[in-house]
Amino acid sequence: MDTKQVKAYGTASAKQPLQEMTINRRAVQPHDVEMEILYCGICHSDLHQIKNDFGGTMFPIVPGHEIVGRVTAVGSHVTKFKAGDLAAVGCIVDSCGHCEYCNDGIEQFCDEGVTYSFNSPDKHLGGTTFGGFSKTYVCDEKYVLQMPPFSNLAAAAPLLCAGITVYSPLKHWQAGPGKKVGILGIGGLGHVAIKIAKAMGAHVVVFTTSASKVEDAKRLGADEAVLSSDAEQMAKYNRKLHFIIDTVSAKHDVNTYLNLLRHDGSVVLVGLPPEPLEIGAFNVVMGRRSFTGSNIGGIAETQEMLDFCAKHNITADIELINIRQVNEAFDRLERGDVKYRFVIDMTSLKK
Amino acid sequence: MDTKQVKAYGTASAKQPLQEMTINRRAVQPHDVEMEILYCGICHSDLHQIKNDFGGTMFPIVPGHEIVGRVTAVGSHVTKFKAGDLAAVGCIVDSCGHCEYCNDGIEQFCDEGVTYSFNSPDKHLGGTTFGGFSKTYVCDEKYVLQMPPFSNLAAAAPLLCAGITVYSPLKHWQAGPGKKVGILGIGGLGHVAIKIAKAMGAHVVVFTTSASKVEDAKRLGADEAVLSSDAEQMAKYNRKLHFIIDTVSAKHDVNTYLNLLRHDGSVVLVGLPPEPLEIGAFNVVMGRRSFTGSNIGGIAETQEMLDFCAKHNITADIELINIRQVNEAFDRLERGDVKYRFVIDMTSLKK
Repeated sequence: MDTKQVKAYGTASAKQPLQEMTINRRAVQPHDVEMEILYCGICHSDLHQIKNDFGGTMFPIVPGHEIVGRVTAVGSHVTKFKAGDLAAVGCIVDSCGHCEYCNDGIEQFCDEGVTYSFNSPDKHLGGTTFGGFSKTYVCDEKYVLQMPPFSNLAAAAPLLCAGITVYSPLKHWQAGPGKKVGILGIGGLGHVAIKIAKAMGAHVVVFTTSASKVEDAKRLGADEAVLSSDAEQMAKYNRKLHFIIDTVSAKHDVNTYLNLLRHDGSVVLVGLPPEPLEIGAFNVVMGRRSFTGSNIGGIAETQEMLDFCAKHNITADIELINIRQVNEAFDRLERGDVKYRFVIDMTSLKK
Repeated sequence: MDTKQVKAYGTASAKQPLQEMTINRRAVQPHDVEMEILYCGICHSDLHQIKNDFGGTMFPIVPGHEIVGRVTAVGSHVTKFKAGDLAAVGCIVDSCGHCEYCNDGIEQFCDEGVTYSFNSPDKHLGGTTFGGFSKTYVCDEKYVLQMPPFSNLAAAAPLLCAGITVYSPLKHWQAGPGKKVGILGIGGLGHVAIKIAKAMGAHVVVFTTSASKVEDAKRLGADEAVLSSDAEQMAKYNRKLHFIIDTVSAKHDVNTYLNLLRHDGSVVLVGLPPEPLEIGAFNVVMGRRSFTGSNIGGIAETQEMLDFCAKHNITADIELINIRQVNEAFDRLERGDVKYRFVIDMTSLKK
């Protein structure tokens, strides 16, 4: 298969910083869309993967899965895109297409396993897929999103992962008028969750361990914000919430939050704490409450989320950086020093 | 308030065996039903309470909450019962009657707290409520069940707790034709769950740690029974089950069972392990799977369950004992040496 060499930023080991490298992109196939990447967000799972925190990283790795670009070429069978269109790629770039999960539009749970935009086996070229910290991306049009013309396109990039990760459970558990929805943690995911839940019409209560973020939660649109270390404040929410989106990626006490749920309510984990979480039997048995989770969303739902966010003028709060600042950005992300998402201006990576 | 003295079996401390004692029952009030107790089941939570395992036992205690009797007197405002009727009392004998939970028919989650048939504050006489290890019970008719004429009435007694505890989640999570339902553990709860799930039309897969129970599970009606220590057998059920009723009351690895669920499936805990259970984030995030629980059921649903079981000729597999065997029965229950429920012939307690 013909390939094109393009510049990228990646690393050959978990102990080295990211640096400029050259990767191969496949030549455009009949169903493919090729895009020049304009912006790419930095997600905590990029950090996990380059550090090999989950043990499954295949080096060399080029991270990046919140990819916004402009179409430069399309294959002969492509119908939804043409050169010059804005387009986007998120976490998923391939799936089997015929299992019950794919048929139900929840490709993220594909029976044969999803191909992720980076660090997955590459079915076309062999080796692994390389992500959005690069000049171009080539992808079957089925997995390419139509990018609405957000006035701040850079700030819309994080919607491709952070946005769909919270939109999908907010929709599944029916955030809307009359619903009290908790958001646990204000970071890359949590701050977008506040905005989307409000746009859906829910009453939003934010829980944070950080006193400095209480006011910020309200600025972002939360109806109420609670310092989770304040037991007296917390007690006021016992049995009051319909569900809680739990964005915390470190070990934490879920039982406290199960007790804030109404009957049949759910704590929905979207973070990925590396250690198991402990659940007391009474906290689920009493009130038929659930500890559950959600993982990104399918392609159709991702498109729906982008259209919803464009309509409601929702983007992430970002810090735009150039590609040479990427290692510093990962250091700051590890320390939690970002409000609330880094996005790389990929035009800063010269051809 | 007038009272009657009646014989009962109870204990004044966690360290003493049960012995005969005398308790007071209130005189029949306008809304009350009085019954002579014919049979009373022995549930694992009776054992927990007499041993003060959860720390909340108020001594002296008279256990027993799977109570079947014959009505001996009714108050002037009682409309559903008359002397001579078969009747039953389960776990709940009072609730506030006006909170959203009571209004929704899920009194078990009453906002003001339920009055249980034993070891709860007694609103009429002060002190605590005394359970079914006694000659009579007096209860507001709202919390008294109409007992269908089961041909084996003794074997129907365990339905009042074990039966409703599994019927309620089987119905809530929609066991029925086309559904693959797992039952984890074959004991007092599990063996009734097999029968009810089959009667609802589900395909039933039982998981047990005990090789000797594999055949018994099939005799009880299970379509398949799996020894949970057999990793090869277990792997065949990955992502196959719609939900699992988890009846295990000791610490166990829930993650194994989360991985047997289809997307959006639930492991529903009905046991009460005293230690917290550990859940790995990926096991709920991937497939949007839930760890949840269920606690007995409301009064209307308990009546529905009794009628369902009578229609389908479902009772527990029991060992009928007399009241003098009760301490030995508790010892055997603690060792797991019962197939599958002890029921006391309460006529063996002489007036």
